[in-house]
Amino acid sequence: MTAAATRRLLILAEGYSADPHHGKTMRGVVDYGQDAVVAILDSERAGESHKGIPIVGEVAAALAFAPDTILVGVAPTGGKLPRVWREQLQDAIRCGLNVENGLHDFVTADAELVDLAARCDVQLRDLRRPPADLDVATGANLDLPATTVLTVGSDCAIGKMTASLELDRELRARGVRSVFVPTGQTGIAIAGWGIGVDAVVADYIAGAAERLVVEGYRRGGEDVLLVEGQGSIIHPGYSGVTYGLIHGSAPHLYVLCHLAGDTHIEGFPRHPLLPLAELVSLHERVSLPARPARVACIALNTRKLDEAGARMAIAAAEAETGLVADDVVRFGPGRLVDALQAQLPA
Amino acid sequence: MTAAATRRLLILAEGYSADPHHGKTMRGVVDYGQDAVVAILDSERAGESHKGIPIVGEVAAALAFAPDTILVGVAPTGGKLPRVWREQLQDAIRCGLNVENGLHDFVTADAELVDLAARCDVQLRDLRRPPADLDVATGANLDLPATTVLTVGSDCAIGKMTASLELDRELRARGVRSVFVPTGQTGIAIAGWGIGVDAVVADYIAGAAERLVVEGYRRGGEDVLLVEGQGSIIHPGYSGVTYGLIHGSAPHLYVLCHLAGDTHIEGFPRHPLLPLAELVSLHERVSLPARPARVACIALNTRKLDEAGARMAIAAAEAETGLVADDVVRFGPGRLVDALQAQLPA
Repeated sequence: MTAAATRRLLILAEGYSADPHHGKTMRGVVDYGQDAVVAILDSERAGESHKGIPIVGEVAAALAFAPDTILVGVAPTGGKLPRVWREQLQDAIRCGLNVENGLHDFVTADAELVDLAARCDVQLRDLRRPPADLDVATGANLDLPATTVLTVGSDCAIGKMTASLELDRELRARGVRSVFVPTGQTGIAIAGWGIGVDAVVADYIAGAAERLVVEGYRRGGEDVLLVEGQGSIIHPGYSGVTYGLIHGSAPHLYVLCHLAGDTHIEGFPRHPLLPLAELVSLHERVSLPARPARVACIALNTRKLDEAGARMAIAAAEAETGLVADDVVRFGPGRLVDALQAQLPA
Repeated sequence: MTAAATRRLLILAEGYSADPHHGKTMRGVVDYGQDAVVAILDSERAGESHKGIPIVGEVAAALAFAPDTILVGVAPTGGKLPRVWREQLQDAIRCGLNVENGLHDFVTADAELVDLAARCDVQLRDLRRPPADLDVATGANLDLPATTVLTVGSDCAIGKMTASLELDRELRARGVRSVFVPTGQTGIAIAGWGIGVDAVVADYIAGAAERLVVEGYRRGGEDVLLVEGQGSIIHPGYSGVTYGLIHGSAPHLYVLCHLAGDTHIEGFPRHPLLPLAELVSLHERVSLPARPARVACIALNTRKLDEAGARMAIAAAEAETGLVADDVVRFGPGRLVDALQAQLPA
């Protein structure tokens, strides 16, 4: 990914290019990535466009835009590779495109794809394949002089990565030495480095998180490390990853993210969300005794509401928690960054 | 493991046969396993014995006891295979012994060992190798009519598995349809089935736990499922596994385990333990809203104390928490099982 700025991406988003949840990798790379996104592959929306980028129905139709790489830009539950997408990847390989894949199903472990890629002289890369030398956490992150800020939330796919990216960008615009620390497939696709902490051996979650924080510091995050959060500590499927990421990254501050209007974990109707104020106190409670952390502010995603509704939801979140709340996409990250900076060491 | 009762084990415990922490697999298999343990391999204690089992300094010296399998009976931090143990395994393979290994370093992924095993016509088995078809949790466990009891604790290697095994045995002796549900290498070595939840892809921790609970029910745990706990929710390295296991197994009741006298996480001197009463409330707090759980009783490990000290520690734990506490090994599981049964559905 060192030559990231020169790449031309075709993003595979079959069936999900209009879905902000499962299509979040596509959206993140379009909005925050450094590569040129030349086309999006989704046969259900062929002929339409997303933010000016043409949507095509098959790989052949994308060739007019001269892509050099196809990126799997979809994050289905569980991370399995469906048959249709696999066929689209085969088409892309035959057309000479490199493949980047963020699913748990590795393309580099698929003998047929590996063989085809070799014959077509293209590269396969699995964004979630963990480094081979991971180990248990050691506490190396506790001694960094930077302030670690972790986004946490009430559910998956509600804007934790986006909040981290927006806050990082605004902090840097204000002259703060901040770095975005990627922990998932989309963050890695955007930033060009990172470890997918949900894909490591379970015993090494915290060890991977610790390593990422240390690397973020070395990459220039000498004041602030904005760690991309994952999942939720009340998510019945993914909470182990979230919790290990909390203890492994050992944040000083949390930014609590929530999609306004949501009442249950998406896809798990038997699992209600907790009220925001309870989520604040629960996160502060589960911090390691050696690294107490407090919630600095609330990043509220108001995309389901109109503007008046959004302002009401933000005011309600502030009243409920006593913390500054805002929608960093809709109204900009300024107020949350003000709140963060007020809680950084002088 | 179907022919478990006929096997004759040599347990590799090099350097750790006297260590109740890192030698816990050896001790668990000796105390609770169904196989005959014919010898223990630890060159530092050659000529001594453990519970009547001879300790030998090299594989050749064990052959007089006719072992058919060598079991790696040590659980080092991080689960890596040291060079010396690897050489001892090579010796054992050359002597015709099958290998069972519970480390994260898989013997079946070690080309040299695989090749040697093939030439010597012996089997290699990795207890921690997860099933290939794991996936994200679905909530299948929430509908089981059995009561799920999970052991949790203040640290690793303090007696969670032992407490689960002792409580299970006593419940069955009282006519309760109970099953021990193994979640780690030692539990698997003892019971002959299970998944090492610390070795699965992090996203699948809860999915693996859920599957184990469902399987435990099918194996006869129609009244009680005694799930072997892992790690601690305040452990800086392993807490993600613990937390995912809590949400994935969705217990109704916890048994809180603690090694009396411990004040810090072993090996992590910067990480203090929480007081027992705080651990009780923290575990009850982090239960999923869809499955609230309470701590049923305290399993106190008093092995560092004399008998008078043990009785004082137990009384102090009861006074601090208001719950029944006891040492199930030293004083038997009777009082804790009484407390558990009082909290089962009528």
